[in-house]
Amino acid sequence: MTEKSTDVTRRLFSRRAFTTTATAAAAAATIAPFVLATQVDAASADKTADKTADKTAGKTAGEPGDVRRITLYAEKLPDGQLAYGLEPGKATIPGPLIEMIEGETLEIELVNNTDVTASLHVHGVDYETSSDGTRMNDSVVEPGGRYVYTWRTHAQTSRPDGTIEPGSAGYWHYHDHVVGTDHGTGGILRGLYGPLVVRRTGDVLPDKTFTVVFNDMKTNNLTQAPDFTAKLGERVEFIVITHGNFFHTFHIHGHRWADNRTGLLKGPQDHSRVIDTKTTGPAESFGFQVIAGERVGPGMWMYHCHVQSHSDMGMAGMFYVTDADGNVPGHSMDDMPGHPMSGTSGQSMDGMPGHSMHGM
Amino acid sequence: MTEKSTDVTRRLFSRRAFTTTATAAAAAATIAPFVLATQVDAASADKTADKTADKTAGKTAGEPGDVRRITLYAEKLPDGQLAYGLEPGKATIPGPLIEMIEGETLEIELVNNTDVTASLHVHGVDYETSSDGTRMNDSVVEPGGRYVYTWRTHAQTSRPDGTIEPGSAGYWHYHDHVVGTDHGTGGILRGLYGPLVVRRTGDVLPDKTFTVVFNDMKTNNLTQAPDFTAKLGERVEFIVITHGNFFHTFHIHGHRWADNRTGLLKGPQDHSRVIDTKTTGPAESFGFQVIAGERVGPGMWMYHCHVQSHSDMGMAGMFYVTDADGNVPGHSMDDMPGHPMSGTSGQSMDGMPGHSMHGM
Amino acid sequence: MTEKSTDVTRRLFSRRAFTTTATAAAAAATIAPFVLATQVDAASADKTADKTADKTAGKTAGEPGDVRRITLYAEKLPDGQLAYGLEPGKATIPGPLIEMIEGETLEIELVNNTDVTASLHVHGVDYETSSDGTRMNDSVVEPGGRYVYTWRTHAQTSRPDGTIEPGSAGYWHYHDHVVGTDHGTGGILRGLYGPLVVRRTGDVLPDKTFTVVFNDMKTNNLTQAPDFTAKLGERVEFIVITHGNFFHTFHIHGHRWADNRTGLLKGPQDHSRVIDTKTTGPAESFGFQVIAGERVGPGMWMYHCHVQSHSDMGMAGMFYVTDADGNVPGHSMDDMPGHPMSGTSGQSMDGMPGHSMHGM
Repeated sequence: MTEKSTDVTRRLFSRRAFTTTATAAAAAATIAPFVLATQVDAASADKTADKTADKTAGKTAGEPGDVRRITLYAEKLPDGQLAYGLEPGKATIPGPLIEMIEGETLEIELVNNTDVTASLHVHGVDYETSSDGTRMNDSVVEPGGRYVYTWRTHAQTSRPDGTIEPGSAGYWHYHDHVVGTDHGTGGILRGLYGPLVVRRTGDVLPDKTFTVVFNDMKTNNLTQAPDFTAKLGERVEFIVITHGNFFHTFHIHGHRWADNRTGLLKGPQDHSRVIDTKTTGPAESFGFQVIAGERVGPGMWMYHCHVQSHSDMGMAGMFYVTDADGNVPGHSMDDMPGHPMSGTSGQSMDGMPGHSMHGM
Repeated sequence: MTEKSTDVTRRLFSRRAFTTTATAAAAAATIAPFVLATQVDAASADKTADKTADKTAGKTAGEPGDVRRITLYAEKLPDGQLAYGLEPGKATIPGPLIEMIEGETLEIELVNNTDVTASLHVHGVDYETSSDGTRMNDSVVEPGGRYVYTWRTHAQTSRPDGTIEPGSAGYWHYHDHVVGTDHGTGGILRGLYGPLVVRRTGDVLPDKTFTVVFNDMKTNNLTQAPDFTAKLGERVEFIVITHGNFFHTFHIHGHRWADNRTGLLKGPQDHSRVIDTKTTGPAESFGFQVIAGERVGPGMWMYHCHVQSHSDMGMAGMFYVTDADGNVPGHSMDDMPGHPMSGTSGQSMDGMPGHSMHGM
Repeated sequence: MTEKSTDVTRRLFSRRAFTTTATAAAAAATIAPFVLATQVDAASADKTADKTADKTAGKTAGEPGDVRRITLYAEKLPDGQLAYGLEPGKATIPGPLIEMIEGETLEIELVNNTDVTASLHVHGVDYETSSDGTRMNDSVVEPGGRYVYTWRTHAQTSRPDGTIEPGSAGYWHYHDHVVGTDHGTGGILRGLYGPLVVRRTGDVLPDKTFTVVFNDMKTNNLTQAPDFTAKLGERVEFIVITHGNFFHTFHIHGHRWADNRTGLLKGPQDHSRVIDTKTTGPAESFGFQVIAGERVGPGMWMYHCHVQSHSDMGMAGMFYVTDADGNVPGHSMDDMPGHPMSGTSGQSMDGMPGHSMHGM
């Protein structure tokens, strides 16, 4: 199901989208190092349908100034959890990765197929109170109902008084704001959340994106954190979101990132701190890119919450980096609690219904 | 009472103060984008007495190099809480907003009108051990006593060895350090804390400043977080301080800020992350400015701690943005727990005795 | 014992090391302000053996490109705790400060003198899975065994696709990853952790380095946080690491730092936030330098976790800054719980066996 969602949102990221010099993005373009979007094609992901550059380049969606409309379904999963999806019957936890480029507008029609009033609240982008997703702002959806939320984005610009208005780019997220309590505590607990990335013209695109949501003591609402797989040398984007009531420290073995907007240094003069562990609290979100196995090679690289009791309770998963032959070099997983694999290939793509790993 | 405190501390922010090229601030001046302090006049605040530019421009306070003296009163409120104020009988929680400009010195005489030994400890600025506010450094005040604390500030400069000494500018705060325990746990719990802003020559001044203090599960020592009101387009400064024993994530709907010293991007090359949610732990403080309703319009914009159980317990308030007619566009608050308003004007200025909203 | 460990790791920081223009570090050198390593000599530390510039300058270790080998011993202390040390019988909590310069390789032979399987896991640097220190990657050490871990570092460079690969420089740390649980929860709890600093060519060197590890409610595994002493004007480096299950806010009285990689502003255009309090969660680490008593004078400056219950429970120690006569200006410590000193000299160097204060 991941591929379907990818299809819908991925197409906006054509080469053309990221080489645009549309007026609205001009200021931003001048400050971001220009990077050819050679990673635009998601075709390299194992289970993703082939999309040629021609195919994506032919789209007009994804240009600053565009208005796109998608439908999002809030659904009840067989196990009683709630989730968002881009097609009926295909909801996932976390919900689909939604990508925008600064300057775009997204109209999202939420179809509420659950039996409770639900909503869609978003972080980071521009929306009027009618798209707030709160009961007090009359922007929630009764069971069986539908409602259009409008998310707008903008590039960095200067205000008349000379101050800078920041652009919308960032690793953001969306979630319910009404199930259970007026803060959506029940909706979030049961799975109504997902990632949003707003990119800036010129941003480096990843080959794959993995989303990790720490939601109390679960990861992507799983008792045992999911595993992710990439090929040695692939450009992998991690999006980390926290929900619930607890604080966590996200850590990944053998890889590091810059503690700034993109997780990538902007240039030789970018003095951002480089880290491999970061405190993250409820509703915070950040993202970064790594080159899988860069300088450290293929193998099993743990990622986990570094709060000791949390990792011991299952908030630890694997980032498998495969070698040229597609194998994860030979180590046994027998000793790793909660990872019942015995082979060495490590291709434990999470196929559990209702759970997406956002691998593209 | 807010206006009184404003009177005392506001006067230093004349246009002259921010166009100064005093030697001590010269280095700083060259690195901060020069901004005309057109927002200097606090007269736009609803309940604030008119202060013309002439009136403030005539002051000499607020220049780098100046020494000012104020009196601060530690008092017991009718409900048993403790608070700081600039006049007897007018203490507030949080205490008065104190503003300085880099290079200034502030001598604060603390008059202890409570029945316990109290003190004044400050973050961020320069003070000798005699102004530490701790028992071990003999800088506490017995009931009925008075004691002068001296806070100095300085502009960024270079050390003889070529390293940079940072300036004092920042969103800081002050609090008791002796009531209850030698760390002031009892004083903080009962309300002895307040905000301090040290500005840099050239900093953009806000039209209004609101202070939010997460103190365990209370906000400004209130079980229900207070509401704030601004006009569409006003430049609003938020100061967020945390105290006590818990960690929180401050979030505001529909508005964002840069995660740097001022919350404002310094220029098109400032790559600070833009956020709308931030982890904040005990004694941390940060501040930022937003243009009320920018790109999102007037209305009811929630701010809250995003730890779900905290917001559900009352750590959520309203940021009302009024339209050209002074109204908050029409939504009912009936569904919002803890907000008993039924009208649409939304002008719920918190008038509870002993609680200040720091609106200027 | 601190001096011994210092001996081993300090020698790489010759003047020559920091004025090198080795190819691998050239890019980094151009972006870091060049600073003469006048603080290279650790001889100023009270109890540290004299090391002349000639002595250190004659070493070839510490150049980018070098490969060094050291032996690290995991040992059981008399009180049942576990610790790392650079010589048998001299293990400390935290373990020895290990310093590297970008471009260096360190081969660490871990000798396990404890009665449980132990390991060495490191943050920040480059290591293959065989040096991961985890059971699943077969890189743990049985009692009585030995195993070589290889840590590599690199300077900032550009990738073929034009993106920047960050250098290894940072305040990192190492710890056990297998005692008690597969995440090393028992090893960390009992003391198997230590600091690692990777410096960049041109970085400013401190006169002294103090390491503070918040490990649940203990500091450096002590119920009462240790005290540190420096002379007025000395350049003091603090390394702060958190372990265990809780979050803390590190605060120090009278001193501030920049919230970036080094804690020092990189130049007049570095807009990093300046702070004196910072949230830190399990496995996070940061460091900074202060000039002892700069603008505030000698005396007793508390450092503590600012979570009120934590400081009240003992997570507060002293940073003594001595005057020209070697004294800490005269205040009594009688009122400070847990600090049984009665004199005024304040030279309470922690001599408790098995606990290092990393003063150099």
